Amino acid sequence: MTKAENKAASAPGAKIVAPTYEGDFVLDGELKLDCGCTLAFPTLHYAVYGRLNAARDNAVLVCHALSGSALVGSWWPEVFAPGAVLSLDRDFVICVNMLGSCYGSTGPGSVNPDTGLPYGPDFPLISIRDNVRAQARLLDSLGVRKLRLALGGSLGGMQALEWAIEFPQRVDRALVIGVSPLGAMGLALNHLQRQAIQRDPEWLGGAYLPQKPPRQGLSLARQIAMISYKSAPLFDERYGRNPDRSGEDPWLASGQGSGLIGGRFDIAGYLDVHGSRFVDRFDANAYLSILRTMDTWDPARGYASAQEAFGRIRAKLTLIGISTDWLFPAADVRRFAESLSAAGVQAEYREMVSDHGHDAFLAEQAELLRLIG
Amino acid sequence: MTKAENKAASAPGAKIVAPTYEGDFVLDGELKLDCGCTLAFPTLHYAVYGRLNAARDNAVLVCHALSGSALVGSWWPEVFAPGAVLSLDRDFVICVNMLGSCYGSTGPGSVNPDTGLPYGPDFPLISIRDNVRAQARLLDSLGVRKLRLALGGSLGGMQALEWAIEFPQRVDRALVIGVSPLGAMGLALNHLQRQAIQRDPEWLGGAYLPQKPPRQGLSLARQIAMISYKSAPLFDERYGRNPDRSGEDPWLASGQGSGLIGGRFDIAGYLDVHGSRFVDRFDANAYLSILRTMDTWDPARGYASAQEAFGRIRAKLTLIGISTDWLFPAADVRRFAESLSAAGVQAEYREMVSDHGHDAFLAEQAELLRLIG
Repeated sequence: MTKAENKAASAPGAKIVAPTYEGDFVLDGELKLDCGCTLAFPTLHYAVYGRLNAARDNAVLVCHALSGSALVGSWWPEVFAPGAVLSLDRDFVICVNMLGSCYGSTGPGSVNPDTGLPYGPDFPLISIRDNVRAQARLLDSLGVRKLRLALGGSLGGMQALEWAIEFPQRVDRALVIGVSPLGAMGLALNHLQRQAIQRDPEWLGGAYLPQKPPRQGLSLARQIAMISYKSAPLFDERYGRNPDRSGEDPWLASGQGSGLIGGRFDIAGYLDVHGSRFVDRFDANAYLSILRTMDTWDPARGYASAQEAFGRIRAKLTLIGISTDWLFPAADVRRFAESLSAAGVQAEYREMVSDHGHDAFLAEQAELLRLIG
Repeated sequence: MTKAENKAASAPGAKIVAPTYEGDFVLDGELKLDCGCTLAFPTLHYAVYGRLNAARDNAVLVCHALSGSALVGSWWPEVFAPGAVLSLDRDFVICVNMLGSCYGSTGPGSVNPDTGLPYGPDFPLISIRDNVRAQARLLDSLGVRKLRLALGGSLGGMQALEWAIEFPQRVDRALVIGVSPLGAMGLALNHLQRQAIQRDPEWLGGAYLPQKPPRQGLSLARQIAMISYKSAPLFDERYGRNPDRSGEDPWLASGQGSGLIGGRFDIAGYLDVHGSRFVDRFDANAYLSILRTMDTWDPARGYASAQEAFGRIRAKLTLIGISTDWLFPAADVRRFAESLSAAGVQAEYREMVSDHGHDAFLAEQAELLRLIG
């Protein structure tokens, strides 16, 4: 585990659950991608928790979101709490770092075996389905033929659903939280974040050196993302119109550029801290790569119709919308569930009532448990 | 009228209404600002429409929002349509460019008489109340003692309400649309925009030359603002998940940085166009200045309590929330109206049902008319 990953892993207030095993799986040969390119001998970094039972019917795949890692026991320890969704006594839990990420799986920072140089800006477009196909080869190697459950929120939910389409015989149930194909507002938010990175002169068209990354651009991108992960009522409750807690004065009059800039409000200080922390734990090109994976997800792509894609599904699906989600509005998730049902899929929709916005699936464990029974 | 202002003035599809007079009013002596600084001989650029009647009881003040100008007949011509809120036969309409702006009133690009140099980053913090006090001196010079109506949306609504507090004897009615003191989410959005400009290396701490402005930063700031002015349903309806209309391919595979960036979706192309257009018509330091005017508005500031500030109001107030407004949520506007009522003000709340988001007050004239009767 890298220093950066270690930081990502820290979930304040929750007890981290250690994996049974954490390691790399190198795919034998090439992974042919949806975009037409190939990745030679790509690595999947993964972690497992618990043990596969003799009947091999206790496997669960947890899929992570944009900036997550394979260490689900670190970023979502609450799912392992007594009585929670998963149990280390019962389940064999697998979590795989996404391709394109910077937490151990092959991404823009990895060396391209064909050139001996890092991929950098030449890293190809990775689809959700590419991830799922690669994950399936890892599961083969682990002796896991069938998943009792595939689950995830946000980008993780895209993967869980794509599993049910791509490998219908291998998924009994999928839990898809706070996600639908990204709408125009979500695409807009990702466009803003992409520009924040691209316009940082340190980005150098993606060819920056690891020790000199586009810090300011990535920090601003993260801050733009943060406002879409939370909700206005939560921000009002926590930060309101308070001045920054370090003692800055938003009513500062003039001098040294402060006439135009001024001291920060508390919400601004909060965003700055999170932007800065994120730069210490994530890579800008990896961020750009996964933004595209998110943007381009269309479960019907490659099929004659959505009906044909959805018609493959055999798993029982539960889709959960979040009442204050701005990135993936609950109404969109509900409509998505309805379109799945209309295609004959066993898909039920449930709504999480929370002030936490998109991040509620991480923040509101009790409510999540109540919904999925 | 400058070239830039001319562009700002173009309201596609609506017939521009020409002012009766447009010109500059130079305040005699100093304007003492809330922040403790002073502006020497500040200029207010203003426009008037129609004529003041003999009884001097037909004056209406329209206050503009962040990037507006004095030319209300250009950016909001619909208010002059037959049967609309205002009438050129009946009303004497005044609109004043805000201090800090770049459309003729004193702002960061103006020359500081004390130094003979442009203010640039040394331009002081301007409050909403500073604007209102300066406007009152202009109205004195025009012979307008009393306003039949003060109205505005967004930042314009802040000014209309502040008029009712600061000059209770001079305002009969105020129409305050899509606004309340900015909440934490709004402060967050402004913080993101501020950073987009500050982090553009061309900004030079605010000391850029007019011919070499921070174009990329201002464009990104505008794009961040745009998403808060509209709504997700509107974006879905207009742009959906369509590829950019110029023919770019969001599924572009690799090569020349496109593996990480790719072709744009239509919503991204839309945002880019609007960001780029904005840079041709607005100044970055003026934008920063008015963001602070917006951030720091607290009608109770300088009073012992909100109750004391609101208790001054004699005007009849109508506050209008917009159902899909994300920048100033309707619930916040409703609560704000309730707090005014609780202080004994005649304040009624009405809600505009629209998919247009914050910008609905400009886009949905028929609905606005219906609400204000």
